[in-house]
Order: sequence, then C-alpha cells, then structure tokens
Amino acid sequence: MTTEPPLPSKTAAVLVIGNEMLTGRTQDSNLVYISKKLAQIGIRMRHGRVIADEEAEIITHLNALREKYDYVFTTGGIGPTHDDITALSIAKAFAVPLELNSDAFDRLVQHYGGAEHVNEARQRMAMIPQGASLIDNPVSASPGFHLGNVFVFAGVPRIAQAMMDNVLPHLQGGPPILSRSVGSSLTESVLAKDLAALAKDYPDLEIGSYPYFRPSGYGLSLVIRGIDATRLEEAVEDVCAMIKHLGGEATLLTEG
Amino acid sequence: MTTEPPLPSKTAAVLVIGNEMLTGRTQDSNLVYISKKLAQIGIRMRHGRVIADEEAEIITHLNALREKYDYVFTTGGIGPTHDDITALSIAKAFAVPLELNSDAFDRLVQHYGGAEHVNEARQRMAMIPQGASLIDNPVSASPGFHLGNVFVFAGVPRIAQAMMDNVLPHLQGGPPILSRSVGSSLTESVLAKDLAALAKDYPDLEIGSYPYFRPSGYGLSLVIRGIDATRLEEAVEDVCAMIKHLGGEATLLTEG
Repeated sequence: MTTEPPLPSKTAAVLVIGNEMLTGRTQDSNLVYISKKLAQIGIRMRHGRVIADEEAEIITHLNALREKYDYVFTTGGIGPTHDDITALSIAKAFAVPLELNSDAFDRLVQHYGGAEHVNEARQRMAMIPQGASLIDNPVSASPGFHLGNVFVFAGVPRIAQAMMDNVLPHLQGGPPILSRSVGSSLTESVLAKDLAALAKDYPDLEIGSYPYFRPSGYGLSLVIRGIDATRLEEAVEDVCAMIKHLGGEATLLTEG
Repeated sequence: MTTEPPLPSKTAAVLVIGNEMLTGRTQDSNLVYISKKLAQIGIRMRHGRVIADEEAEIITHLNALREKYDYVFTTGGIGPTHDDITALSIAKAFAVPLELNSDAFDRLVQHYGGAEHVNEARQRMAMIPQGASLIDNPVSASPGFHLGNVFVFAGVPRIAQAMMDNVLPHLQGGPPILSRSVGSSLTESVLAKDLAALAKDYPDLEIGSYPYFRPSGYGLSLVIRGIDATRLEEAVEDVCAMIKHLGGEATLLTEG
C-alpha cells in the first residue's frame, strides 16, 4: 500500500497467562504498560493474547507467537502454587529441561533468610528452563527469566512493570514511536471523508479516530503516530486545519 | 485428569480489534465485562486476542477463533472512519458480500433526522455482511451485528456493554459459574503445598491463588469457581480450615 518509510519494523507480542483474566475477576494492565515502554524504544506491539493456566494452551500459543514476532512477553503463573505452571510449560515449548537454577535459589535463600526457609513450594520458584537468564524481581523473590526471544514476567502489575523496566535497556529497537493527539469538537461522521483523504497523504503515519462518551458528553480524539517528528507536526497542522475548515474546533491534547 | 462433572462446556473468545489497544493508549475493559456476563449464563470465556485494524489480521484471527469456540465476540472498528474496517473484514472472513442493510440505514435516518443527513461516512455504518442480523446500539446509531457464532460490537465500552446486554438473553449457556473468594493472611509459599493437595480433592472446581501488593501491604485471595453450590461451600470451608490449621486467618471476601 505504501513505499514510504514505515513504522519501526521490530515487533512484539504479549501472552497474558491466567484464568483470572478470563473470568472477569482481573483486568489486565500489563499489555498497556509493555506497549508504551516498547514504543519509546521503537518496537511495535502487534498482538496480545489472553489464555488460561493450562500447559497445552501455553505451549501452543507461546510457540505460535515466538515464531512470528521479534519479542514475546509473557505475564503470570511464575509463583509457588499449583496453578503456577508457566515455567514448566515454557521449558516444554522450548523442549529444554526445567531445572533448579542455583542463582535463583540463592536469591530465595537471601530473601527468606536462610536455606532452611526455602520450602518445597518456594523452591518451585527457582525451577527455571535450562539456558534461561534471570530477570530481577525487586518486589518478591521469584525471578522472571529470558530464553530466546521470550521474556517471562510475573502477573502482578507492580512486579511485571519492574521486570519490564529491567529488560528494556537490553532490547534492540529503533527510532522511538512518537504520538500526537488532537481533540475535535466535530463528530467522526462529519470528519470521516476528509480524514480518510488526509490519511492517504500520510502513508508513513498511523492516523486513528477514537470517540468517547463521558458524563460531560461526546468527544473525539484523533491520534497520529510515526517516527518522523517533522511529518508528525505537518499532520497535526493539517488535521487542525481540516477540523477548522469543517467549522469545528481543534484542541492539541497532551495525551499520547 | 478428571472424570468429575466439568465446568460448563460452552466456550467463548473475544477478539479486540484496534491499534489503540496495542499502543498503550487504551486499556481494554470489554473482555472483563463480557467474561463476567457469560459466566452468569454458564458460558466459559477461554481466550482473548488483541489485534490491529488490519484486514488480513482480522480475517485470520476471526476465522481461527470462530472455528474453535462456540461464541466469538469482536469489539471495535464499526464506526464511520477510514480505520473502521471490521464489517468489511468480517464479510470477507465469512466469504459473503458487504451490503447496504436497509434496517441499519433506517436507524441512521431516524437517528440523524432524515436521509439527507446520512452522508457517505454515515452510510458506511449501514454496510453489513449479507445474512447478518443487527444488534441495537442505544448510544449512537451504528448497529452491531451477529453472523453465525460471531457477535460484532463497538469498541467504546459503554456501547459494547449495552450490546452485550442485548444479546445475552439469546445465547445458549448452561448452569451459572459460581465464584467464592477467601482472603488469607498467609503468603502463597506457606499455603502452596496444602492448597495443591486440597485442589486435587476438588477436580470439579477451579482453585486459583492471586497475590496482590497494595500500599497497605501484601495480600492473597484464593478464588474457587464451579457450578455446584454445595461443592463450592465445602471447598470454601476446607480452604478456611487449611489456613487456620497453618496458623493464619481466613476471611470470606465478597468479590467474585
């Protein structure tokens, strides 16, 4: 569709693992956090997947995603209880043994104040697929790990976020993905035709239209994303001019 | 693994469509809402998938999901702008024409106060795959639709929720999935061994362990789900007794 410079070509996916994400109990917030951080270093989040704590599901979907995307991040299922089966399932997906990782074990010994306090359940958290490197967990002791292009995080948002911050400097990305937003007093259906024409002039940018309904009434944000700051500015100006030309008011928004 | 009565066998998946879900801009809340509502009528949410506004992506993933699950719900991409390509993509996935739906057109005429106000962009919202039936949109005019086992909703949560409420009475489910939660003053690694043994006594129930970290400190919820109220009560009593036996305090929680 276009020969213009595209958005960065490095891609990522998130695999959210956990029954609680499919029962209505818990709303995932890790996809949003990981996506934002990756955009800053020029990696595009392309896919999210939410699955149950089941070995066959984890193996199937992890293997599908790690083959297709440059980076895959999993969240959930690395604690000490019976439903924490992510590490074993990932070892099986990679066809490597799950083994007691001495570095992970040492971290648990230190966290719990002695080897005598690392009971069987806690020792489970030191079982890591062979060949994986550990990811620090500054909140509780149980480390995440990194194997091939897969990064395995805890599900608890505070821990997942800390793990993401830890691995971010080690990822190979590209130019940051920049984002600008324009608020419009006009509705989507009034703008749609001109906006479509404008979007065709900017095949190197992603231009999205997002209506919302709040107690204060209807609103519309137009979001422009790309890697070239000058092109972004041009598009923002064109979008504002378009809204004014159609009789509306445009507002530069600070949100991404 | 078990020959006990399983959780209800009817399954569902959600396909979240929209670039804004993959940029960190927007946090999906529709999966949670749809999952909760389905549990009430005995349908298990089994899978969530988040993809970009791209025709090939929508076709591939919709076809994968509608083959595998009893019900598929899509959210997003049914408005009037250039990035609203869900209806066309779904028509292509089903290999049926996208056509002007006269009922949908009439709704737009009524909403906008006359056919002369239904411009080209608004008319796009009346383009519906052949053979689909419409789903009311009480917020804005643009209807959702239902084709085969696929239900196509708007992305705006207020509208998606209203559409879900509209279709719910028409879905074939089973006994409601019940849920009980017990708060534990003990950490996961203290409980893990006994909890695993307990879970083996209840192969007909799903027992999950969910730690959280709040400013007030560490907390743990044990969540028990199933369709048999008596079995659920038994499991709750056993979980409470287990926590007390290990020297902790158990609290019955009102959350699901």
